[in-house]
Amino acid sequence: MTTIRKAAVLGGGVIGGGWVARLIEAGIEAVVYDPDPQAERKIRAVLENAERAMLKLTLAPRGELAPWRMAATVAEAAEGADLVIEAVPERVEIKHKVYAEVEAVNAEAVIASSTSGIMPTDLQAGMKHPGRLIVAHPFNPVYLLPLVELVAGRETDAKHIEWAKGFYAELGMYPLHCRVEIEGFISDRLQEALWREALWLLHDDVATADEIDAAIAYGPGLRWAQMGTMQTFHLAGGEGGMRGMLAMFGPCLKWPWTKLMDVPELTEAFVDKVGDQCDRQSGNLGPRDLEKIRDDNLVAIMQALRANGWGAGKVLADYETRLFAKKPAPAPDLSQPFETVATVIPADWTDYNGHMNESRYGQLFSDAADGAMRLVGADQDYIAKGMSYFTVEIHIRYLEEANAGDAVRCVTQVLEGRGKKMRLFHWMYHADGRLLATGEQMLIHVSLETRAACDPAPEVLAKLEEVAAAHAALPLPDGAGRAVGQKPG
Amino acid sequence: MTTIRKAAVLGGGVIGGGWVARLIEAGIEAVVYDPDPQAERKIRAVLENAERAMLKLTLAPRGELAPWRMAATVAEAAEGADLVIEAVPERVEIKHKVYAEVEAVNAEAVIASSTSGIMPTDLQAGMKHPGRLIVAHPFNPVYLLPLVELVAGRETDAKHIEWAKGFYAELGMYPLHCRVEIEGFISDRLQEALWREALWLLHDDVATADEIDAAIAYGPGLRWAQMGTMQTFHLAGGEGGMRGMLAMFGPCLKWPWTKLMDVPELTEAFVDKVGDQCDRQSGNLGPRDLEKIRDDNLVAIMQALRANGWGAGKVLADYETRLFAKKPAPAPDLSQPFETVATVIPADWTDYNGHMNESRYGQLFSDAADGAMRLVGADQDYIAKGMSYFTVEIHIRYLEEANAGDAVRCVTQVLEGRGKKMRLFHWMYHADGRLLATGEQMLIHVSLETRAACDPAPEVLAKLEEVAAAHAALPLPDGAGRAVGQKPG
Repeated sequence: MTTIRKAAVLGGGVIGGGWVARLIEAGIEAVVYDPDPQAERKIRAVLENAERAMLKLTLAPRGELAPWRMAATVAEAAEGADLVIEAVPERVEIKHKVYAEVEAVNAEAVIASSTSGIMPTDLQAGMKHPGRLIVAHPFNPVYLLPLVELVAGRETDAKHIEWAKGFYAELGMYPLHCRVEIEGFISDRLQEALWREALWLLHDDVATADEIDAAIAYGPGLRWAQMGTMQTFHLAGGEGGMRGMLAMFGPCLKWPWTKLMDVPELTEAFVDKVGDQCDRQSGNLGPRDLEKIRDDNLVAIMQALRANGWGAGKVLADYETRLFAKKPAPAPDLSQPFETVATVIPADWTDYNGHMNESRYGQLFSDAADGAMRLVGADQDYIAKGMSYFTVEIHIRYLEEANAGDAVRCVTQVLEGRGKKMRLFHWMYHADGRLLATGEQMLIHVSLETRAACDPAPEVLAKLEEVAAAHAALPLPDGAGRAVGQKPG
Repeated sequence: MTTIRKAAVLGGGVIGGGWVARLIEAGIEAVVYDPDPQAERKIRAVLENAERAMLKLTLAPRGELAPWRMAATVAEAAEGADLVIEAVPERVEIKHKVYAEVEAVNAEAVIASSTSGIMPTDLQAGMKHPGRLIVAHPFNPVYLLPLVELVAGRETDAKHIEWAKGFYAELGMYPLHCRVEIEGFISDRLQEALWREALWLLHDDVATADEIDAAIAYGPGLRWAQMGTMQTFHLAGGEGGMRGMLAMFGPCLKWPWTKLMDVPELTEAFVDKVGDQCDRQSGNLGPRDLEKIRDDNLVAIMQALRANGWGAGKVLADYETRLFAKKPAPAPDLSQPFETVATVIPADWTDYNGHMNESRYGQLFSDAADGAMRLVGADQDYIAKGMSYFTVEIHIRYLEEANAGDAVRCVTQVLEGRGKKMRLFHWMYHADGRLLATGEQMLIHVSLETRAACDPAPEVLAKLEEVAAAHAALPLPDGAGRAVGQKPG
């Protein structure tokens, strides 16, 4: 398996910029070539969006971003690259020219074209080493959408497709191997069919851009975010499933419910009509505003699906599991309070007062208690065996406000750890050192079967007593033992 | 504007059952005719799904469900109905026969066909009162998806379309008026184009049902849940918007990226192939399991979009606002603690211990404090003017577990209300009377501009003092003034 340390990205548009974001997130250096003098600025804008989205997307420990830079030529970018990602315009002759420039300086790296639908066999024609050309077709925004279609051309070495499945999955993506080479692959053939019909509806004045989009986003689109058209219609058939659906709606396939396969001519007047309607549709929102809204929605949808363990949400959950596994907690120094939470506050934790909602302080202290539980061995496996700790009481002091994007950490002292009892004291700190809140929390060990208090397993109790004994030497924290409204001191 | 008290639903399949759910949710009695002896059982299954989804979807106060029943004939269902919803199979002759039976007993009610694409002009041909026939085309699951397409036939009285816009919006839906009558209307033309291409891909063995769906659900589908294809491509064009997109991808429209408009013949062998693949795709999950997963995902997606105030989420938020407005809080009896929260616990509030996560108790007490704030006039308008209360301290006792679907309420006593201070005591009760938790909470009045403590507006302070004076006569609640781990008594 080739380890990718440095990748060339040829073409710095929306797609190329998105690839740069995915690469540096994974710790892979990116070197970009794009003849557009504005390219560097545009990539920076994409990277800002990507960083903003990642902060909201996940609380998993992200690695350090790798560096990226512009190169003056294709050769400069490609030389020494372990992977070459091509994202230049959809014209075969431009792509061929770029590949020739790559091959002049790099004979080894896989060349992965981002083409939306040109056959890899056509792309690799004339290459010196055609076996290394694959299609890896992503979707905008590349830094958020998991789908990447992998397609081999007739001369592609199959081992590169196998390698790509692992590589793109490692980036947090969902590689879909399109086993049959066909123009437009799978996803864009489906999108293109819908897109052609949409253009006809607009062209024939049946509907405006706004109405065409409403007809998707308030209905079928909500289904397509989680199931495709096959599974959706499998359910539309009721108890008869897909067979029932085909019996019911099969006849409609003979009716003129679409206007394909020809397509309106893109005259200047028609392009203006489409462009004007799309501008009007977006009102005062420019592309950059809309991108942020789109990303917030995508993040929220993917998080929603993650909570249900489904589709794109499951891809995200698996990715996070790997991130957590890469950064295991070090064994703490028991002579001090130990770190139990280190995270960044997501945007949707803020409330109408413009700061982190009070209940989220409680959530972070709940996470801190989980950290203490893990430390004494009451971890996921332990819980799966039917035992856990329940919080019976908590006292929180809110000392400072916290905002979305703030890095915060909790450290925890064990005040009491014997028998069924675990009493903890948490401090929540901002990355700038400010104390944001404290929490004093009493937990009781329980059986998840009887839901009643019971003694912990001996090894958990032993570890808890060890930590409690070590922490007994620490001073009682300021604020411990306090009731609401009690005067300090 | 006609007030709808009773509606006939003709056809009790997936769509008819979904309409029954929407209707009774809105307090409209439904009378269903369906010749299938299994219809009543199937409708019950749909209603169970709908109830399950609504419990998860919203915390807004839902009204009482209206009753529904089966009728033995079309005439029995239609007689006296204020609205007739037709959801019978997609065959014009069946629909004509049903309309004739309706017209024999009911000359007034609007007849709303759920057809997916038959032209209303064809449907109303031969009717005695064709002016009252409209198309109101919903999407499965009808009880969750907001989209409903409204289409008039040549003889439809325009006032019925105007009425329908208001009526379906009142049900929490998004009415899309399809201004031009065309087969398949807008949404199904778009869906049908994609669906035909999907059938070809499967027919030609380019991809399996599973791969076809992955090509949507991990990529374009995540975009379509929030923006349609026009706005999506407007963004794919980068800074050039839709015009840039057309310049970039316009040429591809001339390439054979789709295979339409003809469609594979539905031979027995091909139906089996599609059906088999859809069965395999779903693994052990039957249609009923999949429906629940789909609904959970839809609920989560719509809630995610609601948090961002976008698309289907905005429709939901507007609907909830109306529900809240319909049920204003009565002026409380100040000689007693007053109700500040009444809600049902959503499924995603539970954690790995199988009960409501501790932080959500804090969230409900935060909501209870909002209730107390509203009572003293520190409401949304007040906050918009730049003043609010911040929690500085809370003490929570967790007395009993709570589970998803549990109805809970909070009542609140003002322990202290003078100057900048508001100290509250909340009790959280299960609907069965059990005390689940108590919370003692200190809030301080602040300026949202300076983020520092300041005096409340005089009218807020006066009201707070009035409530505090009334509550001063109440005994100090059990648990007030308590520190964590303190012995009772």
